[in-house]
Amino acid sequence: MRLATLSDGTRDGMLVAISRDARRCLPATGIAAHLQQAIEEWPTMERRLRSLSRLLEEGGGEPLDHDRLLAPLPRAWQWLDGSAFPQHGELMQKAFNLPPIETDRPLMYQGLSDHFLPGHADVPLPSEADGIDFEGEYGVIVDAVPMGTPADKALDHVKLILLINDWSLRAIAPVEMKTGFGWVQAKPACSVAPFAVTPDELGDAWQDGRVHLPLEVTLNGQWFGNPHGGEMQFGFHDLIAHAARTRDLVAGTIIGSGTVSNVHYSSVGSCCLSERRAIEMIATGAASTPFLAFGDRVRMDAGDGVFGTIDQHVVANITDR
Amino acid sequence: MRLATLSDGTRDGMLVAISRDARRCLPATGIAAHLQQAIEEWPTMERRLRSLSRLLEEGGGEPLDHDRLLAPLPRAWQWLDGSAFPQHGELMQKAFNLPPIETDRPLMYQGLSDHFLPGHADVPLPSEADGIDFEGEYGVIVDAVPMGTPADKALDHVKLILLINDWSLRAIAPVEMKTGFGWVQAKPACSVAPFAVTPDELGDAWQDGRVHLPLEVTLNGQWFGNPHGGEMQFGFHDLIAHAARTRDLVAGTIIGSGTVSNVHYSSVGSCCLSERRAIEMIATGAASTPFLAFGDRVRMDAGDGVFGTIDQHVVANITDR
Repeated sequence: MRLATLSDGTRDGMLVAISRDARRCLPATGIAAHLQQAIEEWPTMERRLRSLSRLLEEGGGEPLDHDRLLAPLPRAWQWLDGSAFPQHGELMQKAFNLPPIETDRPLMYQGLSDHFLPGHADVPLPSEADGIDFEGEYGVIVDAVPMGTPADKALDHVKLILLINDWSLRAIAPVEMKTGFGWVQAKPACSVAPFAVTPDELGDAWQDGRVHLPLEVTLNGQWFGNPHGGEMQFGFHDLIAHAARTRDLVAGTIIGSGTVSNVHYSSVGSCCLSERRAIEMIATGAASTPFLAFGDRVRMDAGDGVFGTIDQHVVANITDR
Repeated sequence: MRLATLSDGTRDGMLVAISRDARRCLPATGIAAHLQQAIEEWPTMERRLRSLSRLLEEGGGEPLDHDRLLAPLPRAWQWLDGSAFPQHGELMQKAFNLPPIETDRPLMYQGLSDHFLPGHADVPLPSEADGIDFEGEYGVIVDAVPMGTPADKALDHVKLILLINDWSLRAIAPVEMKTGFGWVQAKPACSVAPFAVTPDELGDAWQDGRVHLPLEVTLNGQWFGNPHGGEMQFGFHDLIAHAARTRDLVAGTIIGSGTVSNVHYSSVGSCCLSERRAIEMIATGAASTPFLAFGDRVRMDAGDGVFGTIDQHVVANITDR
């Protein structure tokens, strides 16, 4: 089952089921006002939404207006982003000229969750000098997870899977990281591909709490990378258990995998500029790939469009203050 | 004007105005369903809520049931906690056996905001071995702050002021801090004193974006400290501008000062156990004050009860998983 959120003037938007060919949708009117409500009452909601989804596959529904697609959760109560691909961590420390992070536990930070950008909207950022970068990753939406839930019971809480671009500002990231407080300025709002999919929708690609699909990134129309989601050191069940160690996770919490990255980066490329720059540093002593400029276009896709696509431009933020 | 939230079975509770003597309240029925809504539409809401408040001072209202008081915002879209008292930072690094943090900018992390505990509720935590500690601090609730708002325009966005206990787990904090990702497990849900007050309610105590009031902490009935809120290195306007550098702050964002701490700690004491332990380490080479045990009681108060009181016990978390 694929779900999406259409803009309707409200902050949480309108929940719809999406057909397999992504051409038609059926509003969940009378079932749930929005996805946050659905995830809070999932057992009942899932049954009804699957019925809606079947109606759609039987030919019902209306044409999907792709311009109205928001992030599946336009805002969430919590966004906890891991960094579960060890190859990414290793390369990033090199990119930042920092020693390897010594830890035996999943790496995770709490990020901005009050606003997730639609996958097709312009991304307003204040300055090219901040080192604008993308980070392609997978994420999951969980229902309520009680404090202390162990990893072997955590996977049942994964209700929907997402494709996310975690925008990052690399000139600020190492400065904030050195304080130990994590990132605030370095992590503006993320973008999310329009379709949130149930685990069964991924078939065999959802295994061991990992999304076994290449994440394809295109920069200004050129191939940039397609590393595979299977190389997570910790699966999503481990990340959920880590997050829930000392807190209840509210229904609708989004947990991210961190940037997808593979050991064989020379053939599959990367999901962020910083990694490619680190690889260049290792190979030639200097980074040659620049960070993004306003007007640059980033496209992300996975699993033959099962999540829909992220395809957007970064632009200068203009605010009337 | 003092505002509070009463439990009514909903997650956001019911907004009420509170009398100066904290004995009576008037529900904001017909004005705003809850405080989040009020802060989103503040110019209109403030006018109406002040009328309500005047009715209350003229003798209207109903008896306030203190047992029904929740945190003013039982949940918020964003909680960004600073660490603006340099004396606290210096002592904490000693407590954690870490070098001083070198930074010219405000320190800030993003914390759990989907749940703020009432000031009188038990605080369920998983293990005494985590090094359970309290952190007394002030916070502000802002309306919408556009990305890039400078510090000299940021103070206008402060609509309400709070007293907060930022619960912290000290056995985990330095481990997470060393990763550079900030705190997830080390920072469970905060507690908030029941009354959110407008800046004018504090009179001369609200100056330069700082709360010039001692924050009084009592541990198991014994005085623990009453350091003064005026010694912030950065005022709340600086913290807001820092937070809004690369993101829009959504209305209802809470910004914290970090643990109140003074240079003359020998006379005023501390707002957290870790600080006292660091002071003991400096004085005698070893910490003698233990972290909290289940059953311990922490009380916080400031400004003759203007925020109401935080007065609660830490307890073992028991969850049916």
